Amino acid sequence: GERKGQAERMLGLMDVFLKNDPISLQKDILHHVEYTVARSRFSFDDFEAYQALAHSVRDRLIERWHDTLIHFKKEDPKRVYFLSLEFLMGRSLSNIVINLGIRDQFADALSQLGFDFEVLAEQEGDACLGNGGLARLSACQMDSLATLDYPAVGYGLRYQYGLFRQVIVDGFQHEQPDYWLNFGNPWEIERVHITYPVKFYGTVTDEFLNGEKCKVWVPGEMVEAVAYDNPIPGYGTRNTINLRLWAAKPSDQHDMESFNTGDYVDAVVNRQRAESISSILYPDDRSYQGKELRLKQQYFFVSASVQDIFRRFKDTHKKFDEFPEKVALQLNDTHPSLAIVEVMRVLLDEEHLSWHRAWDIICKIFSFTTHTVSPEGLEKIPVDLLGNLLPRHLQIIYDINFNFVEELKKMIGLDYDRLTRMSIVEEGAVKDFYDLWPHKFQYKTNGVTQRRWIVVSNPSLCALISKWLGTEAWIRDIDLLIGLRDYATNAELHQEWKMVKKVNKIRLAEYIEVMSGLKVSLDAMFDVQTKRIHEYKRQLLNILGIIHRYDCIKNMDKNDRKKVVPRVCIIGGKAAPGYEIAKKIIKLCHVVAERINNDNDIGDLLKLVFIPDYNVSVAEMVIPGADLSQHLSTAGHEASGTGSMKFLMNGCLLLATADGSTIEMVEEIGQDNMFLFGAKAHEVVALRKKGPTLKVPLQFSRVVRMIRDGHFGFEDYFKSLCDKIEGTSDYFLLGADFMSYLEAQAAADKAFVDEERWTKMSILSAAGSGRFSSDRTIQEYAENTWDIQPCRCPF
Amino acid sequence: GERKGQAERMLGLMDVFLKNDPISLQKDILHHVEYTVARSRFSFDDFEAYQALAHSVRDRLIERWHDTLIHFKKEDPKRVYFLSLEFLMGRSLSNIVINLGIRDQFADALSQLGFDFEVLAEQEGDACLGNGGLARLSACQMDSLATLDYPAVGYGLRYQYGLFRQVIVDGFQHEQPDYWLNFGNPWEIERVHITYPVKFYGTVTDEFLNGEKCKVWVPGEMVEAVAYDNPIPGYGTRNTINLRLWAAKPSDQHDMESFNTGDYVDAVVNRQRAESISSILYPDDRSYQGKELRLKQQYFFVSASVQDIFRRFKDTHKKFDEFPEKVALQLNDTHPSLAIVEVMRVLLDEEHLSWHRAWDIICKIFSFTTHTVSPEGLEKIPVDLLGNLLPRHLQIIYDINFNFVEELKKMIGLDYDRLTRMSIVEEGAVKDFYDLWPHKFQYKTNGVTQRRWIVVSNPSLCALISKWLGTEAWIRDIDLLIGLRDYATNAELHQEWKMVKKVNKIRLAEYIEVMSGLKVSLDAMFDVQTKRIHEYKRQLLNILGIIHRYDCIKNMDKNDRKKVVPRVCIIGGKAAPGYEIAKKIIKLCHVVAERINNDNDIGDLLKLVFIPDYNVSVAEMVIPGADLSQHLSTAGHEASGTGSMKFLMNGCLLLATADGSTIEMVEEIGQDNMFLFGAKAHEVVALRKKGPTLKVPLQFSRVVRMIRDGHFGFEDYFKSLCDKIEGTSDYFLLGADFMSYLEAQAAADKAFVDEERWTKMSILSAAGSGRFSSDRTIQEYAENTWDIQPCRCPF
Ligand SMILES: Cc1ncc(COP(=O)(O)O)c(C=O)c1O
Ligand SMILES: Cc1ncc(COP(=O)(O)O)c(C=O)c1O
Repeated sequence: GERKGQAERMLGLMDVFLKNDPISLQKDILHHVEYTVARSRFSFDDFEAYQALAHSVRDRLIERWHDTLIHFKKEDPKRVYFLSLEFLMGRSLSNIVINLGIRDQFADALSQLGFDFEVLAEQEGDACLGNGGLARLSACQMDSLATLDYPAVGYGLRYQYGLFRQVIVDGFQHEQPDYWLNFGNPWEIERVHITYPVKFYGTVTDEFLNGEKCKVWVPGEMVEAVAYDNPIPGYGTRNTINLRLWAAKPSDQHDMESFNTGDYVDAVVNRQRAESISSILYPDDRSYQGKELRLKQQYFFVSASVQDIFRRFKDTHKKFDEFPEKVALQLNDTHPSLAIVEVMRVLLDEEHLSWHRAWDIICKIFSFTTHTVSPEGLEKIPVDLLGNLLPRHLQIIYDINFNFVEELKKMIGLDYDRLTRMSIVEEGAVKDFYDLWPHKFQYKTNGVTQRRWIVVSNPSLCALISKWLGTEAWIRDIDLLIGLRDYATNAELHQEWKMVKKVNKIRLAEYIEVMSGLKVSLDAMFDVQTKRIHEYKRQLLNILGIIHRYDCIKNMDKNDRKKVVPRVCIIGGKAAPGYEIAKKIIKLCHVVAERINNDNDIGDLLKLVFIPDYNVSVAEMVIPGADLSQHLSTAGHEASGTGSMKFLMNGCLLLATADGSTIEMVEEIGQDNMFLFGAKAHEVVALRKKGPTLKVPLQFSRVVRMIRDGHFGFEDYFKSLCDKIEGTSDYFLLGADFMSYLEAQAAADKAFVDEERWTKMSILSAAGSGRFSSDRTIQEYAENTWDIQPCRCPF
Repeated sequence: GERKGQAERMLGLMDVFLKNDPISLQKDILHHVEYTVARSRFSFDDFEAYQALAHSVRDRLIERWHDTLIHFKKEDPKRVYFLSLEFLMGRSLSNIVINLGIRDQFADALSQLGFDFEVLAEQEGDACLGNGGLARLSACQMDSLATLDYPAVGYGLRYQYGLFRQVIVDGFQHEQPDYWLNFGNPWEIERVHITYPVKFYGTVTDEFLNGEKCKVWVPGEMVEAVAYDNPIPGYGTRNTINLRLWAAKPSDQHDMESFNTGDYVDAVVNRQRAESISSILYPDDRSYQGKELRLKQQYFFVSASVQDIFRRFKDTHKKFDEFPEKVALQLNDTHPSLAIVEVMRVLLDEEHLSWHRAWDIICKIFSFTTHTVSPEGLEKIPVDLLGNLLPRHLQIIYDINFNFVEELKKMIGLDYDRLTRMSIVEEGAVKDFYDLWPHKFQYKTNGVTQRRWIVVSNPSLCALISKWLGTEAWIRDIDLLIGLRDYATNAELHQEWKMVKKVNKIRLAEYIEVMSGLKVSLDAMFDVQTKRIHEYKRQLLNILGIIHRYDCIKNMDKNDRKKVVPRVCIIGGKAAPGYEIAKKIIKLCHVVAERINNDNDIGDLLKLVFIPDYNVSVAEMVIPGADLSQHLSTAGHEASGTGSMKFLMNGCLLLATADGSTIEMVEEIGQDNMFLFGAKAHEVVALRKKGPTLKVPLQFSRVVRMIRDGHFGFEDYFKSLCDKIEGTSDYFLLGADFMSYLEAQAAADKAFVDEERWTKMSILSAAGSGRFSSDRTIQEYAENTWDIQPCRCPF
């Protein structure tokens, strides 16, 4: 009305967009120093300068985010809603300024103020709202969704405590809560008015509405979800999409309870407990123990997200038949799978659709990605727990199952055995489902974003690639990377390529020295295995190999030693706090490192370093500096693995089993350019069947014996670890694969001394990594699964 | 260094101070809409406009706050540290812009944008970090400290939940948690780097340091305190002082515990509990039950504040003999009294001073104000609790007492009875202490700030006063108010004075109508009693009087009724959640109101309104609209009372007992201008001695009987209430004072119908209120107690 007219008139006074010339940027930064960070203009430290810088960037981010949201609203395209309980974003600053295309301007502006952009960027703490691969994948996919202009919205939880920080005390892992919000988070926008009530417990009653019987859920507890929006900018586009994270807050609007109790303080304390629902990220990356709090988190997240999706739909649409034309819901793993039941519940109980219509919608809108091939990875929820916390949902699940089994009977007849296996209330066997509906199962190659993993974290390599390809277009169009193959033997490129690797190795070596005091030789091969610690990922195989190598060197004469290829072995990764065996592996790594690194006999021939607290920032520094990376999962256990993709993009050679994505890497870069080893998936099955008759090599028994005999101390502590890999209990086949592993290692050594060959392999690795960009994955999802179109925001 | 040089050069680019012309203000507001509130420039609602406005004001506040802190740092004057567990700030926006002198500029700028300043100001929620009088007093005193340029720092707790919100359900009080931070708080500055560890539990061990035995406290738990700074601007000065509130946050720096436990989630949840220490304000304004959480809050607050004070002192000083020259510590009531022991502990155990030197310092730096004259008001802490939570402090208390008793023996000999009474570990009798050290006891008249209670909340009256005094100087120099006496009979002033009251009555009447649907007559006398509900404050006497009045009217004939002075009786106030009798009084008020307001017989002759959730904002609206205000505490029970001062300043007539500050009001405005009643303090003692032989008037028995007989329903519920005021149990002497009360009410009626007399009394009330400005109180404290000087920041 009139007010709006007046406001618009006044807006004539403002620049339409913030300016990015050095003076404007400097003014902005200093303004934020004084008025946002509230520091004196004449004294602020690096952290405060970072905060001011971040707020200046945030201002520019907000402009685009706004425009994108408005554009989506106007165009009203079909959207994909990406639901994930975990997002491992790491740091944001560099990524954002690069995607916005204003990194250099900011760096210049800062240097005139006497600050170094890189130094300030280091001030930022990681946002670790996830455990590992699955969570980082969500982050990469958000980047691709934004860059490819897809109308997407991410939903997640804003944990107050991110993934624990790993600290090493006497070689043992300890866990520290990661209160990442302590120093503020400039990348989020608190949306105090976007809140939804989330219900728990209570009972279900029958009521009559307009003569129709319907179910009404009378909750016993209510918590409020408030939205925190995290703008995700695309690269080379104005599009900046939204990642909405929910936090629990004290319910004030929909207040059911005002107290009338003598002990008011107690009552409030109790209520606070309910509100801490979203505060802690579960630190297990593969299995959950059916804890009530975990289930509460999942439903809290799902309920708020679904309410938000319905609200948006209903703002502009009336008929639910249009729902599948406007909404696709992507579930990242099983964690958000309650969303299916929740949407069903809302359609039935609140929108009063018939079962048939509701189920039809469900079947059209949902898709879900599994990240695991092992049954333990599937979350199981005890029926009692579910029935107590979400009584109406349990009813609906039973109803879905009933209808489903009826349907099945029509399709497959009364094969009770098969019916039981497929009843979805009990654990289903995937294969049975696949046999019936093969089109519902699609394999998609995962990918990572080259923006984060080359452009942000390896700027020298980025510049080099652009120089040789003659364009920066590969940053949005990864297929161009293949063009590097043309120069795979070019001596000039070789020279520059080696320089880049050296620069990155220096950075990594400095980090190692600062962190542990250990000086490592830059001539050595930097051999890295970083990922969550798991038996199936076989860090133990790596350590046993290192002990073997150490043992060999010790037994060599002087001349032979001269031929040894020097190695710096780097291991890093967190163990789930309750995962005893994984924690023992970490301790073993430390005792072995202690022995080797202090053995004057060995010198630079072998070093072993454990890098603590492996997270995105550490990965960004370690990956570019690695010569070789190891991916040792027993074949058949890694659904994909994305760490390997990052190494590949950065021209690291891979030493790996044929498992998960490495199988596809062979297709892309050829097995000559990798060091493959170990039993294939089908062989693993056979080997396990052999069981007790399986022979293990002497070398293997020897290194295990060294541990058992207390060569590295702590023999009692390591006994259970040794028992796990000897005899029939060697489930992950360390013994069976050991010789093959050593051979692959020897091949790597041989290749490394031939510099030209190694560099060529390195170039071909990067050149062949295009298939592993999340841009490609997302495009496939968009076209084949979600059926959505790009919606590009005009400049 | 170089960097600083560069930064300063760049600062040449910035305006030194933000500009306050309309265009600049509008640009600022719109900038904050888009970039801070993160709303679209083209759509923002009143609340978002308020947020943007508040941030623009905050920017200007920060400039002065900075300059003041720097000035204090440079000058290094003796500072007073004002420690209070409660600050009842209410809203801040209007107060701040008025003190900064930029209210009109902002109002103009907003109106050009199509917004109304007053409407936006209403969007702000109250900061209710306190219970009642004591807490509001702290707020008034901070305003005076800033205005009078004193180098003061306030310390308090940043409760996440302020004082509960009172909601009335069926006439009963219910309590709702007040999560005042839900929508952000632009008036605070989070100082993430100003944190201190606070220790609890554990043990005390003896250690040797440089050959000296000393005590070391090994804590069992540690919580981190983080500072939130709230700038408090003075009026008519650049000085803007700091109120630092502490919040508990997860400890990361001084991390004692990293977990190494399977159940990490559980461990974190437990730790979170410890961190919720500062989250809830105890809702009792007079007594505490020795709860551990309360004691933890107190020590948390005291420890962080003391560490901050020592840090500041040690930044620039080496010798502790200078401590009393730089530091005065004011304790607001007993709540922060652990500060004495804590300073002693730090001096002894950490700074290694001798007992004698340390105690000498203690005696010089501390002063403390009590706000109560009743023993229940003094907090008592069970020895076990203290010894467990703060083992070292208990030792020190015993040592202090030992030394004190030794000293005493020298002074008064071995009078065991007297010694026991005075042993400070047990409850002491104040009188004994007074007899020995009369100079340590000073009576100070409390005061309230005219900035908040006239200038902010009654702008019409403010303008009128300035007009007639010919100056605004009274806003800083309250003594000028007396000048109004010269016009006490001036007809023109009378006219304008009545207009102002009418405007304020209209506002109040509208509020009542919106809130309760009740239409009240503007011709009626608005008769107000608002304050915490307490037996000693005798809201019950008021209600009984109203029942009596109702009963009388009912029994009158038509003609007599014409002579009745119409009344709107307004009662408001919160009851402590565990205070049953107070809650019954609230319910009684509602049932009586229900009866009277719906009695067509009565019409406008009598209305009774309970205003729920009495807080500062409600007070700011109610007080200017009141014709008469009631202060009925049984003589001898109210140490001061500050509500009455606010009414007085606003030209309300007082109907009161001679208790607390009303005694001084008589001195200022004469008893002809007030309606005094009831037993005097010395008579109360005598009356209580009479006990069972005390006669109560028939009228009194009649109204109590009406309640007992169920005239208003709920007779069972009210039985215990009636029992409390009949027979020997009428401790607060409602019966004894009843006739006198009715007479005072009749006198008020009589005065009200004589408009000229009433208006003159009203003018003389305001004119005589100067003594009750907190400016005067603070000046007395500064000169006589703290020995500090103003330290004015240059423009
Ligand atoms: C911090 C972090 N953890 C875990 C992973 C997943 O590694 P992988 O796929 O090798 O298990 C990644 C991927 O780079 C990562 O950045
Ligand atoms: C909200 C509030 N509560 C309580 C009080 C104290 O009132 P009294 O001194 O009449 O008890 C005040 C003072 O104005 C107040 O503003």
